Amino acid sequence: MARHRFVTAVQTTTLRYNEAVPGHRTQGGLISHHKTSRILLISNSTLHGSGYLDHAADEICDFLGNVQKVAFIPYALHDRDAYTRTARERFQAMGYQLSSVHTTTDPVDIVNQCDAVFIGGGNTFRLLKALYDFDLLGTIRTRVAEGMPYIGSSAGSNVAGPTIKTTNDMPIVQPPSFNALGLVPFQINPHYLDPDPQSTHKGETREERILQFLEENDTPVAGLREGAMIRIENEAMTLKGSSGARIFRKGLGPIEVLPGSRLNELLAS
Amino acid sequence: MARHRFVTAVQTTTLRYNEAVPGHRTQGGLISHHKTSRILLISNSTLHGSGYLDHAADEICDFLGNVQKVAFIPYALHDRDAYTRTARERFQAMGYQLSSVHTTTDPVDIVNQCDAVFIGGGNTFRLLKALYDFDLLGTIRTRVAEGMPYIGSSAGSNVAGPTIKTTNDMPIVQPPSFNALGLVPFQINPHYLDPDPQSTHKGETREERILQFLEENDTPVAGLREGAMIRIENEAMTLKGSSGARIFRKGLGPIEVLPGSRLNELLAS
Repeated sequence: MARHRFVTAVQTTTLRYNEAVPGHRTQGGLISHHKTSRILLISNSTLHGSGYLDHAADEICDFLGNVQKVAFIPYALHDRDAYTRTARERFQAMGYQLSSVHTTTDPVDIVNQCDAVFIGGGNTFRLLKALYDFDLLGTIRTRVAEGMPYIGSSAGSNVAGPTIKTTNDMPIVQPPSFNALGLVPFQINPHYLDPDPQSTHKGETREERILQFLEENDTPVAGLREGAMIRIENEAMTLKGSSGARIFRKGLGPIEVLPGSRLNELLAS
Repeated sequence: MARHRFVTAVQTTTLRYNEAVPGHRTQGGLISHHKTSRILLISNSTLHGSGYLDHAADEICDFLGNVQKVAFIPYALHDRDAYTRTARERFQAMGYQLSSVHTTTDPVDIVNQCDAVFIGGGNTFRLLKALYDFDLLGTIRTRVAEGMPYIGSSAGSNVAGPTIKTTNDMPIVQPPSFNALGLVPFQINPHYLDPDPQSTHKGETREERILQFLEENDTPVAGLREGAMIRIENEAMTLKGSSGARIFRKGLGPIEVLPGSRLNELLAS
């Protein structure tokens, strides 16, 4: 299979996770953001006024190209069968076969047998706990480092970062660690929401929450508005979609970024 | 001191935490909701159109009565000095002295020397991590079981529940466990927000998030709108404040509750 062509390069250039983040070592032990990585991180699965993944379909088809079999990871939602039906129907309409990891006793094998992986949205804590429970983090990191296309949406984009510390989700279950796949060197905040000047609600705004994250952590954060995506290939990170993003970095003011912008320098950790 | 009168009763009737939640044992090891407990859980520190704790001041004074010294726990915010100044000024205006645990090398001693405790709002993960770091959970549980008045606001209300699994906050730091003080047998969702029928945003509503919690857990959840409070004394749990609450229980539809309602039966675990 094509992925074996990249193994040597991966072994020589991939960072050890515990070199980058002292005191932390994730399952599998690697941050695998790498020059062969091909990654599409989508803010949201459904955009107001359109159907499931409709707003991202053109980008997904362009990104996946001639790939045939996509491994689906439905763990972020409770009803995995229903979720798989929804995702399979949408991917079939785009011309791809979809196999869900929840239909087998060997999820790792499904990921290894497929040509791409798609991790859907839902609850990020439930998703990450299942990735640990089913021992999938190392396999996904290795395959993505070898060049297997990775698509994440919402929670599936959150887990592509070094940690899930910028999720919007409720911590309904406790994963063994907040450390995630580390496929990219920055954090994602999906469904990024601008403050509503009319609001009388006194809970923190999304920007205030992300600034709290930066009080405690150094990693840059990409706040992806609904409709926005980040596409990574050939070592270029590009903002795609319609709605723009807001980038947050420690000690610096937030920056607005328009679709089409290159993000490499803004999101370098 | 008065608290010693209750020690025997506490030892005979308090539940062991790991009896209630198999496989989990919190620091200190106890759920201390108990007939001597006096607890005031406030949804939010500031209500639109008024100053810090103004909307809760009458209830706080009625609840604390002749107490003199209040231990303040400011760990949920980054700037603990500034937070303490704000809280001290407000409590002084109500007639109480406030001592912050962050000004000493022995926070446990401050809690033991004071007559009441107030845990302020901010980020729930940062707060709970600090309660573990400073070994405060067991002391607070013991003192509250002995009858020391406990006031929590927002994150400070979240940590009064068995876990922080119904917080709205971003998981900016990782506490060793999501298990919290367990002073009450139900979960709090502070700043509870009704869905906006005009919204085009596709992130989960607050109700959807709490229903996700109940997919994975059995504990009832009190969604406290801004302006609402729960007051517990003499074994009665009463909804106070102006704005009502929404109660969520596994397998049952949500229930609207008006100010003044008794909550014991609805929130029994």
